[in-house]
Amino acid sequence: MLLSGKRVLIVGGDARQLEIARTLVERDALVYLAGYANLHAPLAGTQLIDWTPEGLGRFHAVILPAKGIGEDGTVDSLFNPRPIVMNDAHFRALFGAVLYTGIAGAYLRERAARFGLPLVVLFDRDDVAILNAVPTAEGAIMFAIQHTDITLHQSHTAVVGFGRVGMTLAPRLKALGSNVTVFARQSEALARAYEMGLIAYDIGELKRRIGDADAVFNTVPAPVVTAEVIAAMKPSAFILDLASHPGGTDFHFAEKRGIRAMLAPSLPGLVAPKTAGRILADVLTKLIGAQQHENGERSR
Amino acid sequence: MLLSGKRVLIVGGDARQLEIARTLVERDALVYLAGYANLHAPLAGTQLIDWTPEGLGRFHAVILPAKGIGEDGTVDSLFNPRPIVMNDAHFRALFGAVLYTGIAGAYLRERAARFGLPLVVLFDRDDVAILNAVPTAEGAIMFAIQHTDITLHQSHTAVVGFGRVGMTLAPRLKALGSNVTVFARQSEALARAYEMGLIAYDIGELKRRIGDADAVFNTVPAPVVTAEVIAAMKPSAFILDLASHPGGTDFHFAEKRGIRAMLAPSLPGLVAPKTAGRILADVLTKLIGAQQHENGERSR
Repeated sequence: MLLSGKRVLIVGGDARQLEIARTLVERDALVYLAGYANLHAPLAGTQLIDWTPEGLGRFHAVILPAKGIGEDGTVDSLFNPRPIVMNDAHFRALFGAVLYTGIAGAYLRERAARFGLPLVVLFDRDDVAILNAVPTAEGAIMFAIQHTDITLHQSHTAVVGFGRVGMTLAPRLKALGSNVTVFARQSEALARAYEMGLIAYDIGELKRRIGDADAVFNTVPAPVVTAEVIAAMKPSAFILDLASHPGGTDFHFAEKRGIRAMLAPSLPGLVAPKTAGRILADVLTKLIGAQQHENGERSR
Repeated sequence: MLLSGKRVLIVGGDARQLEIARTLVERDALVYLAGYANLHAPLAGTQLIDWTPEGLGRFHAVILPAKGIGEDGTVDSLFNPRPIVMNDAHFRALFGAVLYTGIAGAYLRERAARFGLPLVVLFDRDDVAILNAVPTAEGAIMFAIQHTDITLHQSHTAVVGFGRVGMTLAPRLKALGSNVTVFARQSEALARAYEMGLIAYDIGELKRRIGDADAVFNTVPAPVVTAEVIAAMKPSAFILDLASHPGGTDFHFAEKRGIRAMLAPSLPGLVAPKTAGRILADVLTKLIGAQQHENGERSR
């Protein structure tokens, strides 16, 4: 799909943005970068612009960082000496564009609504979340190998939650020779885990069945790895919480108990920025392309 | 198997030795430690002794570090302020014992022979090497996830050599969704790789078929990843050399070419010291037990 003539502004971000920019340029979009003062080498086919409300031209699409923008309007950029700020004047100047972000907090949602800018939250999409689950699972495997003194092979592991991440991680752990137990609430999830040859229990069994786990991977963004559950774990267990901030683990109790526990969100950008960027680039190409189509229909 | 009455001396080493000591104590052996001055907490059932030839009693077995001892007789110990030295007087004093080591260099082989001490080189044993291939493969997967910006899933990887490590690593990479190509010399190895559903080529094809590899895992302890092969790789490729020192990669040329290449031997002790220790502990239990049996027969 070609994006010829589409004017796209990328504001801040990390290594994923480079992959997005490259892909959009390949698709013939006109790509502008704001907050890239430190970029080592110019990105072929892109143009650097100043982040001033007056200087902003008209764009079809504005791509914000995967992690969204801060609640004070700051936009982090790996390629700028300091974060830039997106204030009301910027939102007003961008009227006519669709905003794309990975995650959206209250600040961004409120202003997008107030200034009449359609907001697309990419990580809320099922396709993006499923594709992102792959680097997340690989990152979890990397951390488990790194932070335990045993092999995953012949270990006992627990995967809490069997949604997009759990369903991606559990079979991989099994393939590496771990004895995996899945804990989930919904009967379809338990059925799917069973179908995949995994041992599966209702999440209510967690406390009773966690005792032999060497590593526990939580994917549920709610307090499920509670003090009671942690108290039932062996002292050498390792907890990796993959749920979005603040995770589902009682980290305070884990520390008190001397059980190692880590919150590791945003693994895709950390362990596979290029793949994670390509995932976003592909869906953005589709969405901006569809946007073009819509505009075309509207102008008829 | 019980080792009651067997006197075992552990000299130097790393975290693996703790697992070995624990296992031998469980089996009722009398376990002595030399070079453990810095041990935080005493290991239950063991006894610290001084490393002086005069002070050494009689032992049935002496366990040296997995990596052996230096060519100047130094024995590294993670638990001592500095390495200790094993000189002729020590070898003489240990007469009657069987020496166990992971790897044996010329210094150790020569002195063991000269002073009439049987020497068992554990990593030369097929069982130990196969079991150690598991933590090696997991460590390789960890490094590949960490040091590339893409996922193993949907990547192209090459495994060079299909011995104990290659045969353990390649199916794991495949299970994680990588497109794995195996390069081997022996026709049985190629047949086995084919049987396992892997794409397999003669190692002579390496140069011609390496072009799309994102990561290359070498397991052959001979110069196979040559300048010619490296020149055919894509610039973003990552080479992980798992063969014993100095590996099989032309590191100098890789650096010149800007291709990232790492030598990563000794992964078991690094990523899974407890599992690696247990592997050694289990085989040592069997071997020292059999030694007891032999002695018993001899004394009849």
